Order: sequence, then structure tokens, then C-alpha cells
Amino acid sequence: MSGLTHLDENGAARMVDVGSKAETLRKAIAGGRIHMSAKALGAIRDGDTPKGDVLAAARIAGIMAAKKTGDLIPLCHPLSLDSVTVDFRFEEDALTVQATASLTGKTGVEMEAMTAATIALLTIYDMAKALDKGMIIQHVRLLEKTGGKSGTWRADQ
Amino acid sequence: MSGLTHLDENGAARMVDVGSKAETLRKAIAGGRIHMSAKALGAIRDGDTPKGDVLAAARIAGIMAAKKTGDLIPLCHPLSLDSVTVDFRFEEDALTVQATASLTGKTGVEMEAMTAATIALLTIYDMAKALDKGMIIQHVRLLEKTGGKSGTWRADQ
Amino acid sequence: MSGLTHLDENGAARMVDVGSKAETLRKAIAGGRIHMSAKALGAIRDGDTPKGDVLAAARIAGIMAAKKTGDLIPLCHPLSLDSVTVDFRFEEDALTVQATASLTGKTGVEMEAMTAATIALLTIYDMAKALDKGMIIQHVRLLEKTGGKSGTWRADQ
Amino acid sequence: MSGLTHLDENGAARMVDVGSKAETLRKAIAGGRIHMSAKALGAIRDGDTPKGDVLAAARIAGIMAAKKTGDLIPLCHPLSLDSVTVDFRFEEDALTVQATASLTGKTGVEMEAMTAATIALLTIYDMAKALDKGMIIQHVRLLEKTGGKSGTWRADQ
Amino acid sequence: MSGLTHLDENGAARMVDVGSKAETLRKAIAGGRIHMSAKALGAIRDGDTPKGDVLAAARIAGIMAAKKTGDLIPLCHPLSLDSVTVDFRFEEDALTVQATASLTGKTGVEMEAMTAATIALLTIYDMAKALDKGMIIQHVRLLEKTGGKSGTWRADQ
Amino acid sequence: MSGLTHLDENGAARMVDVGSKAETLRKAIAGGRIHMSAKALGAIRDGDTPKGDVLAAARIAGIMAAKKTGDLIPLCHPLSLDSVTVDFRFEEDALTVQATASLTGKTGVEMEAMTAATIALLTIYDMAKALDKGMIIQHVRLLEKTGGKSGTWRADQ
Repeated sequence: MSGLTHLDENGAARMVDVGSKAETLRKAIAGGRIHMSAKALGAIRDGDTPKGDVLAAARIAGIMAAKKTGDLIPLCHPLSLDSVTVDFRFEEDALTVQATASLTGKTGVEMEAMTAATIALLTIYDMAKALDKGMIIQHVRLLEKTGGKSGTWRADQ
Repeated sequence: MSGLTHLDENGAARMVDVGSKAETLRKAIAGGRIHMSAKALGAIRDGDTPKGDVLAAARIAGIMAAKKTGDLIPLCHPLSLDSVTVDFRFEEDALTVQATASLTGKTGVEMEAMTAATIALLTIYDMAKALDKGMIIQHVRLLEKTGGKSGTWRADQ
Repeated sequence: MSGLTHLDENGAARMVDVGSKAETLRKAIAGGRIHMSAKALGAIRDGDTPKGDVLAAARIAGIMAAKKTGDLIPLCHPLSLDSVTVDFRFEEDALTVQATASLTGKTGVEMEAMTAATIALLTIYDMAKALDKGMIIQHVRLLEKTGGKSGTWRADQ
Repeated sequence: MSGLTHLDENGAARMVDVGSKAETLRKAIAGGRIHMSAKALGAIRDGDTPKGDVLAAARIAGIMAAKKTGDLIPLCHPLSLDSVTVDFRFEEDALTVQATASLTGKTGVEMEAMTAATIALLTIYDMAKALDKGMIIQHVRLLEKTGGKSGTWRADQ
Repeated sequence: MSGLTHLDENGAARMVDVGSKAETLRKAIAGGRIHMSAKALGAIRDGDTPKGDVLAAARIAGIMAAKKTGDLIPLCHPLSLDSVTVDFRFEEDALTVQATASLTGKTGVEMEAMTAATIALLTIYDMAKALDKGMIIQHVRLLEKTGGKSGTWRADQ
Repeated sequence: MSGLTHLDENGAARMVDVGSKAETLRKAIAGGRIHMSAKALGAIRDGDTPKGDVLAAARIAGIMAAKKTGDLIPLCHPLSLDSVTVDFRFEEDALTVQATASLTGKTGVEMEAMTAATIALLTIYDMAKALDKGMIIQHVRLLEKTGGKSGTWRADQ
């Protein structure tokens, strides 16, 4: 027994059966950052001034990707999300993202939050790569989950 | 002028016109890693023994995601990829991924390689999260690109 | 406060949280028309005689698009539709479409009905554009919605 | 009256309204096989030894396709599946697949099981076609369904 | 003979064979508008001030939809677009959209431009419908196409 | 060495590199059938009379699925198809489908033709399953391919 719930007793991949699980309110928050040069960071901040399209595009991309999680991650259940939000914060040498997803359902939304955060960061990479190809996506992780049988979990600080 | 090619002179997002660019052979390699507990790493390694489904699922997910890049990243061109490969390596406290994409076309495949690497890592997170919710995706970056007008670029070691 | 529910207090886009809303039966009807030359209209009518493929293709396209609404409209929730129908009527200088969508859920299906109507009209444009590039899509609007907290709404005649 | 539930009284296609149906536990099992040369069968079996990627890829493809059923089959409802599994068995001159899907919902999952089985078989065809273009997909059918108003149904042996 | 190129001699739908057509630079411009109340128009304008998310979301939605045209319109060819842009203009009682698509290829991009314009307008409807359900999408049409065997075409003013 | 081109020397799945292959005209024809009761067959034939929606829906579904082949079959390249057609023929106890796909490109379209045939058959199953759950999809196979380095191949009669 490997402890990996997505493998059956023969090691074959499967979508775990959630049919007998209760519908509860579930929420997950994921975070991450993209480290970049001062030049790229400045361009995003400035490009952002008139129309907000850089962060707006990344936010929209993250929200839309959360809805596609079941289409991207092979063994994720397709979910009817209640909400998704994606927020950014400028740091000295990086842009930080935090994504929150929630639903009332039988299975958690950790992957939806993680996917939203990741695709938002990739979108920023795409939009600024003409200025800095060496940007690095760092520290993408689950920050918190609530609801479900296993209850609340929080990442170490 | 922000220097961000995906914004026009008003800061509005656009898909950059590649109509006048030449078709050349282009290739990109992206890498990343997912840090995890010894327990999760061992389970993936063992779960991998009989049927290979953990890494196989992550590899397939990464390859399929590369083909969806234009559907995920708002301003990416839809591309006819020539090839995609995704490889893993076990390290002491992490699993490392390297993704390579290539095409003969007018625009580069950096985002396709980055997307393949990222979704492969997210799939590993999904399959092992029952054992370790604290896994962290780290150091996702472009390692190398060749072809196109700007020629070869390699990340600093 | 802009009154736009898809923007938060900072003006950032978000998917509105419907977690606390009740599941009720909701229905929406949208309509629209495509104005065209007598020649194009006649060809659709005649092409329709033997196999019905023009309107059949547009109807199928509209129904399938309703199911993709959450994938097309950035801040729409992914919904489990109960039903979708798409109907056409020939007028003197136009073809009229009416699309109906319904579900038992937490949020309305206005966008699903609007998307079905619109994509059905675009499909007709595509299939007849060899005869008349000057066709015009007109008067696409919500005709009626029922269910949900805001209750019934009907467009002015 | 044709008896075809997907056509209305005029013969027009529609997505059947399931709004008044009860949510019950529903399950469906579909099976099929792909007949091939001894050489192709041996290569899959051997290719399968070290990493399992042939059957693993086909299994993942089948599971992912089950989630896309509503996007592929025009009049299928989009469903929130509880589980999907795909299993293979080697026979003398063929590889057999069995796919199971389940949900708690208003409509059955026969098409999800049929789609998973079919796409898994097509993936095997794709991966072995360099060795044997003459492979034949055979006997794809529903084996069993349970739940819903019409209750249990089993295929003749 | 109906003159409808998407129907064969029996009236059956088909994707027209473009195999023998030459690759040329092709471009299409589509336009449309959404009529709305002063209140909704003002909210979009104001909501647009701080972060630009309303028009930014609609612009991104239009660009992404152009890339999905072959997935939405049954008989459209999947195309490798060179560029897509979406622009808005405020009028007294409406918001106007203009979408441009181009590629170097065997078939025109009229449907891509039309789809981008339409989905951008639907996104605006979605984001402002809490303020005005009676908004009407009007006058969606092809404004201009260039390239290909049939050459340049312009809509009547 | 397994002879399976989709596995590398370690048995890991990969998308085969077609970068150095020449662009030639390639075509593939696939066939299959769905065996059913006289009652179901009659209903499809009759349901087909007024509006043609049963076969029209299956034809559209097959054509649209051909365009999604790269999204369904993990290691298929995304292709820019030149044409797709899907045809049906009534037999005594079955409905037969034949699908043809073509492109000018670096890799064959066998999987596109096979996918079109299969999804067309599944759509017929879906639309007639209320009358006959025991329908069986049979004999799905490649009938012919032309073009490419390996030249012409035809199935045994």
C-alpha cells in the first residue's frame, strides 16, 4: 500500500470515488511568487498604470484556469466552483500571487487554487519575457484549506 | 513605452503580430522541482515500481498541457508543436522535472515548455497531497531556448 | 462602489461567491437575429430541405456552446445545465433564433442562453458567408429570466 | 413520435430537460477490445514492463475523456462525475478494456463510460500503429448500468 | 446546388477542403456594439478607472475566443493565427467593439474576428448585467477582409 | 527496443519529433459501424426524415471531434486539418460510418479519421439509447492512408 489515493492496489491510476462523501463548504488558498529583474518589475508596474492589462490578464488567466483544473490535472474531479479570486502584491524583487477557491461539494479545491496561482504566474512570465527571460517561479504552495473530513490545514510559516 | 510586447501604445493587451517573422526551428527547455517529505517521495518511488502510474500520469499531463498553452495563457499564439518530452529525476528531498518543446514556426515555444513543466509538477502535487500537503513547487524557469531572431539563450547556472 | 458585481472594492475582476445562495430552478430565454440577402436566406431554406444540415449545425453549435459558457466568459461559473434548446424562425429578411437554458442551481443561466443564441447565429454566418458577407447579427438580448432571488424579469416588447 | 428522446416533436435536436429528475447514485460499465497482431500485442506488453507508459497513457486518456463527454457528444449533459476507472486485460489476440463511471446526479453516466473505453482504445491504436495499422476496435458496448428511474440493465452475455 | 460551400451535393455538412489553396496573408476586421443604459455605461467607465478590469476582461475574453473559433463553429478550420486585437470605444448609449485577426494561411479569418467581437460583447453583458439586464448586442458584422483568392471586401458604410 | 515510436529508450511516453519530416499531402479514411435493433434503426431513419437531426448531429460531432484529436489522444500532434467529412449508410442491422481527414503537413491524419468515426458512432449511441441500450460499436478501423514517407496503405478487405 503506497498511501497514494490516486493509485489502486495494483498501482493503476484512478479517479478516487467521492460518491459517499458529504457536501460541505470547502475553501483553499494557494500562494506563489515570480522573481524578476527590477527592469521587468518596473515595466509591469508602469504598464499597469494606464489600463491595468498586465495584472488584469494574469488575474483573468488564473480564474479561467481554475475552471479548467479537471481538464488539466488527470485525476481531478470536475468541480462546480462557488468562487475564485486572484490577488497580486509587488515585492522588492518579485511579484506575489495569492489565489482562493471555494465550493460546496464532495471534494476539496486545493488543486483549483494551486492551478489559478500557477497559471497567473506563467501569464506574467509570458507578458514580461521580452524584458527578462530569467524570471523564476518560486514557492508555489498550498497556504490553507478548510472544510471536508480532514478539516483545516495551514502551511508552516 | 513599457517594453512589454504584449501591450500596445495605450497599455491594452494584444496578441503580438508574428505575420512577418520567418519560420525557423525553435526549441525551449524548462525546468522545475517539487520539494516534499521523505514519506511522499518514497511513496511516489514505490508507487512507481509496479505500474509507473505516478510519473506516467504527470508526464502525460505535462505533454497534454503543452498542447493547451494557447488556451491557457491569454496572449500566446496557438502553435503546431513538433515534439514535447517531459523527464523526471529523483533528488534527496525533491522530484525534478525537465520539459522540452520544439517546433518549426514563427514564434518561440518557451511558454509551452514552461507550461508542460508546471502542470507535470501540479499533477505530482495532486497525486501525493494525501501524504504531504506541504509540498512546494520551486525554481520553475526557462533553462534554454534556441532558434528565432534572438538566437540562443541559456539561464545562469 | 461601481455596482458591477464582478469587480471587488479595488476594481479587480473576481468570480462572485455564490456559496451561500440557494439552489432554485432557474431559466433564461435569449433571442437574436441575423439579417441577410434574399439569396442567402433562400439558400439556407433550400439547403435545409434535403438534410437540414444548416439549421441542424447551428442548433448543435448553439447547444454545445451553452455548455462551454464558463470556458468562454471569464467570470461565469461552470454550471451543470438541466436543458438547452435552440429554435429558428424564418422572417422576410432575416433568420431569428431563440435559445432557452435551465438548471437547478445557485446562479442564473442568462449567459448560457445568450451564448447559445450568439454562437448559433455565428454558425449561420459561417455557413452562408460564401453567398453574403454583409449579413448582420442584430438584437441579441435576454428575453426572460425566472428563478433566483431577483425573480422574474422580462424584456420590454 | 420517433421514441428518440433527443429529438423534439419536430425532429429538432435538444438537450433533454432533467430538471425534475431525482438525484440518485448512478453507475455504468462499458467494455470493448482492440484486436491486433501478436507483434503489436507483444510490444505493448514489453513496452509496458519498465515504465508502464502504454497502458498508463491509455488509462489516463480514458479517464480524461470521460470528463470531456459533454464537450464531445452534442446532447450530453455536463456532469460532475464521482469516479472513473479504466482497466485492461491481455487476451490472445487483443487487448480488452473495461471502464466504469459513477455519479450522484439526475442523469446516467453510460456515455461517460462508453467514451472512456473508446478513447482508451484509440490511444492504444495510436501508440501501436507504427507496428500494426490493421488493428480493429471491436465490441464497444454498455455492459451494465444501475440507478435512475429505469433501474438496473445488463447486457446479454 | 445551394451555393452553400459547407454542404455537399446531398446537403450534408462538411469541412471544405482547403488543401489546394495557396498560403497568403489574410486579415479580417469585425465590429459590433452593445447598447445599454447610462447607468451601466457609467459604471463600466468608472469601474474602468482604477484597474481597467472590465474592458481588460472583455478584451482578453475576445482574444482567447478567437483562438477557440474552430472549437465553437462546427465547420471552421483550426487556424494558427498570427495576431488578434480587440478595441473598444465609448459612444453615447453604447460601447463599440472592433476586432482584427490575421494569419498567413489557406483560409480566411472572418470567423475569428467575428467570434472575438461577439465574445467580447457577451463578456461586457455578463459584467454589467446586475445593473442593466436589457442591454442589446447590435450590428455585429464583418467590416473588411483582405487576402485570399476573393481579395478585398469592405462592408457598405 | 519495443518498436513503439511513442516510447523512448526507457519506455517513457513522448510526442515523437516530426521537425525534420517533409510537409506532404496526407489523407486517411476510417470506417466503423454500430449494430442495433430494427426498432432503433427505424427510429433513426424516421427521426431523420423531417429535420435530419440524428445523422446531422452525429456528423457534426464527428467533424468537431476530429479537430480535438490532439486534445484527446495524449501523444498526437495538434494538426491544422485541411478537410474532414463524415458519411453514413444504413445497413440491415446497423448504421455504417466512414470518416475522411486530410492535411498538408508533417504527420499523418489516421487518428483524426479514427476519432471522427468513433465519436460519430458514440453520438448515435447516445441519441438512440433510450430505445436500445444493447447497441454495439464494431469494426472501427483504418481503411486507407496516403501520403507521407510510408506511402499508401490499405486495409485487407
